[in-house]
Amino acid sequence: MFSKQTYVNRRKQLMKDVSKGLVLIVGNSDVSFNYQANQYTFRQDSTFRYFFGYDIQGLVGVVDIESGEEYLFGEEVDIDDIIWTGPIPSIGERAKEIGISKTGTIKDLRKLIDSAVFTGRRVHYVPPYRAENVDFIADLLHIKPEYIQAYVSTELIAACVKQRSIKSEEEIEEIEDAISTAYNMHTTMMRMASKEGTYEYTIAGTMEGLALCGGGPVSFPIILTTHGEILHGHDHSLQIKKGRMIVSDAGSENKMGYCSDITRSVPVGGKFNQRQKDIYNAVLSAQLLVPSLVKPNVKYSEVHLAAVERLGSALKELGLMKGNIKDAVKEGAMGMFMPHGLGHMMGLDVHDMENYGENYVGYDKKNIRSNQFGLASLRLGRELHEGFVLTNEPGCYFVPALIDMWKAEGKCKDFINYDEVEKYKDFGGIRIEDDLLVTKTGCRTLGKPIPKTIEEVENAMAK
Amino acid sequence: MFSKQTYVNRRKQLMKDVSKGLVLIVGNSDVSFNYQANQYTFRQDSTFRYFFGYDIQGLVGVVDIESGEEYLFGEEVDIDDIIWTGPIPSIGERAKEIGISKTGTIKDLRKLIDSAVFTGRRVHYVPPYRAENVDFIADLLHIKPEYIQAYVSTELIAACVKQRSIKSEEEIEEIEDAISTAYNMHTTMMRMASKEGTYEYTIAGTMEGLALCGGGPVSFPIILTTHGEILHGHDHSLQIKKGRMIVSDAGSENKMGYCSDITRSVPVGGKFNQRQKDIYNAVLSAQLLVPSLVKPNVKYSEVHLAAVERLGSALKELGLMKGNIKDAVKEGAMGMFMPHGLGHMMGLDVHDMENYGENYVGYDKKNIRSNQFGLASLRLGRELHEGFVLTNEPGCYFVPALIDMWKAEGKCKDFINYDEVEKYKDFGGIRIEDDLLVTKTGCRTLGKPIPKTIEEVENAMAK
Repeated sequence: MFSKQTYVNRRKQLMKDVSKGLVLIVGNSDVSFNYQANQYTFRQDSTFRYFFGYDIQGLVGVVDIESGEEYLFGEEVDIDDIIWTGPIPSIGERAKEIGISKTGTIKDLRKLIDSAVFTGRRVHYVPPYRAENVDFIADLLHIKPEYIQAYVSTELIAACVKQRSIKSEEEIEEIEDAISTAYNMHTTMMRMASKEGTYEYTIAGTMEGLALCGGGPVSFPIILTTHGEILHGHDHSLQIKKGRMIVSDAGSENKMGYCSDITRSVPVGGKFNQRQKDIYNAVLSAQLLVPSLVKPNVKYSEVHLAAVERLGSALKELGLMKGNIKDAVKEGAMGMFMPHGLGHMMGLDVHDMENYGENYVGYDKKNIRSNQFGLASLRLGRELHEGFVLTNEPGCYFVPALIDMWKAEGKCKDFINYDEVEKYKDFGGIRIEDDLLVTKTGCRTLGKPIPKTIEEVENAMAK
Repeated sequence: MFSKQTYVNRRKQLMKDVSKGLVLIVGNSDVSFNYQANQYTFRQDSTFRYFFGYDIQGLVGVVDIESGEEYLFGEEVDIDDIIWTGPIPSIGERAKEIGISKTGTIKDLRKLIDSAVFTGRRVHYVPPYRAENVDFIADLLHIKPEYIQAYVSTELIAACVKQRSIKSEEEIEEIEDAISTAYNMHTTMMRMASKEGTYEYTIAGTMEGLALCGGGPVSFPIILTTHGEILHGHDHSLQIKKGRMIVSDAGSENKMGYCSDITRSVPVGGKFNQRQKDIYNAVLSAQLLVPSLVKPNVKYSEVHLAAVERLGSALKELGLMKGNIKDAVKEGAMGMFMPHGLGHMMGLDVHDMENYGENYVGYDKKNIRSNQFGLASLRLGRELHEGFVLTNEPGCYFVPALIDMWKAEGKCKDFINYDEVEKYKDFGGIRIEDDLLVTKTGCRTLGKPIPKTIEEVENAMAK
């Protein structure tokens, strides 16, 4: 936990940013794995953790905007619980540690909420993403579960986004701690990937073990595949074979719940062949361009476009593209090679605050999301500000199904050299990702540098 | 997957064991971790996997008992899915592989269920344990979610328990595969526990990584603690210190979804002190007694009582108990030292079929669960049969809160030597667990033996 003052200040700011009513922040409970008592590893709700600190089950926080009263609700434990789970502080003791004096049971919470809704006061909540919490909030507010999204408070969302988007120094430290775990995960992957015949799940499993040894779970299910063109595949069943690139996209949460998100792409066996070098350096040139452009007041959508333009120029040199690359970018041609966005916000969530709705976090009234294939997948398009933490993750993929579809449609045929692209259908994909902090004048790549150039990667794989 | 015939036969048997109506078996879907698109590692429902094989999201199986028709329902994927997750077989192709010819979408499923319920046919289902499936089944059957447990089919539960309790040879092989992963996990733990100062989470994280390298997740959240007296604690925050025992209760699921569940208790630093040896050997004597008693038609509740009696006799020799130990067992005195049961069924679930309700699995009309503290926690009390797989896991703990409570009440004071027990309040606990297969004439401890005697454990820790 951070200091008491941190949580007090965050809630104080919240009270300034929400005009009136009750703010209801529901912590997570356990989720069953294969029966009631066997549960997935607990994961606290990030909003609850941000304002109330605790990484434990079954808590609910409430802030009364008008009166300034703050509450922590939860059930006390009895002797049976103590036998099975050890001594546990009372809700009152917990509340005190985060600067809250009013506490109660869930029954008390129901009374408080009733006293608000029955007198017409607004109860603000952010969108729940688990069925348990949908049902719980619907029950608390006496609304039908199917209307839970309709009653979400955009005012509360805006207030949360405003605070959580700007990372404090203590938050940056936690993120860098999570990146140091990712360093261990990816350098271990590099050593393991040098040996042909290893199963993908052995590498991914070892990486996940290292995340846990760092004190937290993985920040998202590890992507570790010799089929990098499958962007969100979580299959790890294959033996790794020479000639294939491994795309390894993995990060951890640290003890304080902050995330890392790193991607490295390495050649099975430890040595890049010429074609792999070509595509790798094309992606790397785009990835290295990004930090030179990121600074306050720059739109990340513009950085995305500059990065894919750099990628396009490199692909033109390789004969995969042709024509005017600026025009190619405008026409959306880069979407075939990079059908995803350049990056996203990162913090307590790996896609930070994604449960609030991507457009509330990554866009605003002045910056509307594009609907062009590829750019439409960019999660962060708005102007950047000091204290933002975001990912820089360009990639280049050869997705046979997508190539066939675009080619048949003749899509962007003035810019894409389909005859050449055909030869790469067995290539797979490459992605390179680091995490950036926007500073006063520019940005800083967070954490200890993880091998990234061809030379660095080959050296790390030879260890 | 097993062969097509395995799944065909299992469903054929189900049709014999359920008298009439539709059997509805809902597979699991993904569960959100911290936002909609970031999900926990998928875990299939065991009942679905048993009868329909597939370890993938969003499938529903139906068996029409009267007509003998079998259905597999699910949504087809489109080009976007293929880009992001790779080529995927159609529902029709999947159905064929498990011997089913009728398929449809979830909309088609709704029609089929409607045609049954609107004409008064029974739709059988087993108890759902995730909010998503509660809501889904309630919606399918047009009943209120709060009545979902009331409408559960005990006839279907009985039919499932009947089949799943008897493990086939191919299932035993899978369980032994999962135990071989547990072997790696626990022998690694032993080596790591020899070094004082290591954090519990580093050991637990390494073990979980090994589970994943074995092809599956852990079968339950790892218990790895120098406070073994906290029976279900999942805290791993402490540095291990000499003088403490580590209780390590951990298993894995294998690729086919079958479980292992093993406990070893080891002294931090690698050498047992005299007091640790004494308690360890007391528990070990009970644990080693069990396989000599387990055979068909023996009640596991009787084996539990024999094991705790053996433990009691050993504790009497150590001066912790006194009087007639048979009487002590009858009075429930052993509950203070071992407040849990001797074991439970194991298979596709680590507590096999626990979602059906423990009393349907571990008890029957002739064998009713005791309400005596300790014995009441025994999950398996019924007569054993050839093919059952179960755990053998006696333990001995010194739970300060429980000792204080019993002592203040004068509970079992003729059998418990409280003055002596007081001296052990800083001891912690010990548990030793293996997995047994009931054979025609007795039983077999499954898997490659994992170091268990004091000498074996000390040797393994020195490696």
